[in-house]
Amino acid sequence: MRSQKSLVYGRHPVLEALENNKPLDRILIHHSVSGEGIGDIIRLAKEKHTPIVRVPVEKLNSLVRGNHQGVIAYGAIVDYTPLQDVISHIYDGGKTPFLLLLDGITDVRNTGAIIRSAVCCGVDAIVFTEKNSAPLHEDMVKTSAGAMMQITFCREKNIATVMDTLKLNGIQIYSSDLQATASLLDLDFKQPCCVVMGAEEKGISPATREACDGTFRIPMVHQFDSLNVSVAAGIICFEAMKQRLTP
Amino acid sequence: MRSQKSLVYGRHPVLEALENNKPLDRILIHHSVSGEGIGDIIRLAKEKHTPIVRVPVEKLNSLVRGNHQGVIAYGAIVDYTPLQDVISHIYDGGKTPFLLLLDGITDVRNTGAIIRSAVCCGVDAIVFTEKNSAPLHEDMVKTSAGAMMQITFCREKNIATVMDTLKLNGIQIYSSDLQATASLLDLDFKQPCCVVMGAEEKGISPATREACDGTFRIPMVHQFDSLNVSVAAGIICFEAMKQRLTP
Repeated sequence: MRSQKSLVYGRHPVLEALENNKPLDRILIHHSVSGEGIGDIIRLAKEKHTPIVRVPVEKLNSLVRGNHQGVIAYGAIVDYTPLQDVISHIYDGGKTPFLLLLDGITDVRNTGAIIRSAVCCGVDAIVFTEKNSAPLHEDMVKTSAGAMMQITFCREKNIATVMDTLKLNGIQIYSSDLQATASLLDLDFKQPCCVVMGAEEKGISPATREACDGTFRIPMVHQFDSLNVSVAAGIICFEAMKQRLTP
Repeated sequence: MRSQKSLVYGRHPVLEALENNKPLDRILIHHSVSGEGIGDIIRLAKEKHTPIVRVPVEKLNSLVRGNHQGVIAYGAIVDYTPLQDVISHIYDGGKTPFLLLLDGITDVRNTGAIIRSAVCCGVDAIVFTEKNSAPLHEDMVKTSAGAMMQITFCREKNIATVMDTLKLNGIQIYSSDLQATASLLDLDFKQPCCVVMGAEEKGISPATREACDGTFRIPMVHQFDSLNVSVAAGIICFEAMKQRLTP
């Protein structure tokens, strides 16, 4: 993990950053721009699994005052570790993996609060997919109160590749679901496991739910509505931690 | 509880709202304004325990386009119930009070998330003091996902009056404190109790800590840092709920 100044802009600087393997979190490109350099940027970004987001020019103008030529990259402030390497490392250390997969949580404040809970409760790594995640850039160091520097992050191509890797490694996949019959309190967190948290309004996708080994609900006195997603993640991590600390 | 359009602005309309007992959450006054009407507004607001906040003119300009004459009031969207009435009502119903006191939490999103957790976990009422609380206005209905309409709110003059009322009614007062030796898991939530949550950076005041019957910490694997305050409140309310549901 390392800290690094955040924005690279202009076609040549972004291309150069890609060519020199400078870690980038994501690249924003004006949605109707093309021409010199853009094709190369897109090709190289794809090769390096750096997400590209097409945005209106106003978004770019709001980020830098200089001439961005339709392209701005966020410098990554964390290095992403391949999920398989992380899992192997945990097993090699004689530990039982406990992972958190954030599927479509794009809100920076919620993501920051979840990272803090994960660190406090001993989660081994937080897994994202290339699309649909909040950018891990400098603004987030503040919302995560420094916790970002104390945990491992993985970013995989998509949910399917994450699920395949988890299953190949014997990791149980659980997801929170308001309609589930099983309770959070009935889950076994002492085995290798990964909890999937979906976005607040959409929840997890049907394909993700299908791939899970089990769904659960957080028991409530008053089930009128769901909890805030970062609060739900905090309660789940805390329950898992308590179970794992009990001999 | 009722919903109501939010802003009243201009000296005469605000004065009229106060004179007609229209429920107001708080009144913002330009910090150097005085003259016609202002003295009456301040006097009446004090009489009715409506908080007054002195703000720069930019804050007022950002809220309304019309001529605010240095005064804007937020219409209250909830009615505050006196704390003693709430406690009496809970005891009269044969229940054991479980209250949450928010001391200096001014962030609207955190407050909204805490209200959601409180409703889900069966907290009887949320108590604020006149100073140092996030305004309960229309923006918050969204962040609380409607939970605001499902719980009782109290707003008392200051912490001392809250503490006196709690003690007179035999309610144990607990507060979360990173330095405490007792664990959340050792607390008895089956007795009448009130949990105090302080602001993230400042925590609770020394005077508040002094008035508490006990402090506790949330046990963590990695105690490097505190949790987000709304996550901490969620974990506490969930633990209390579980205990109270256990026969």
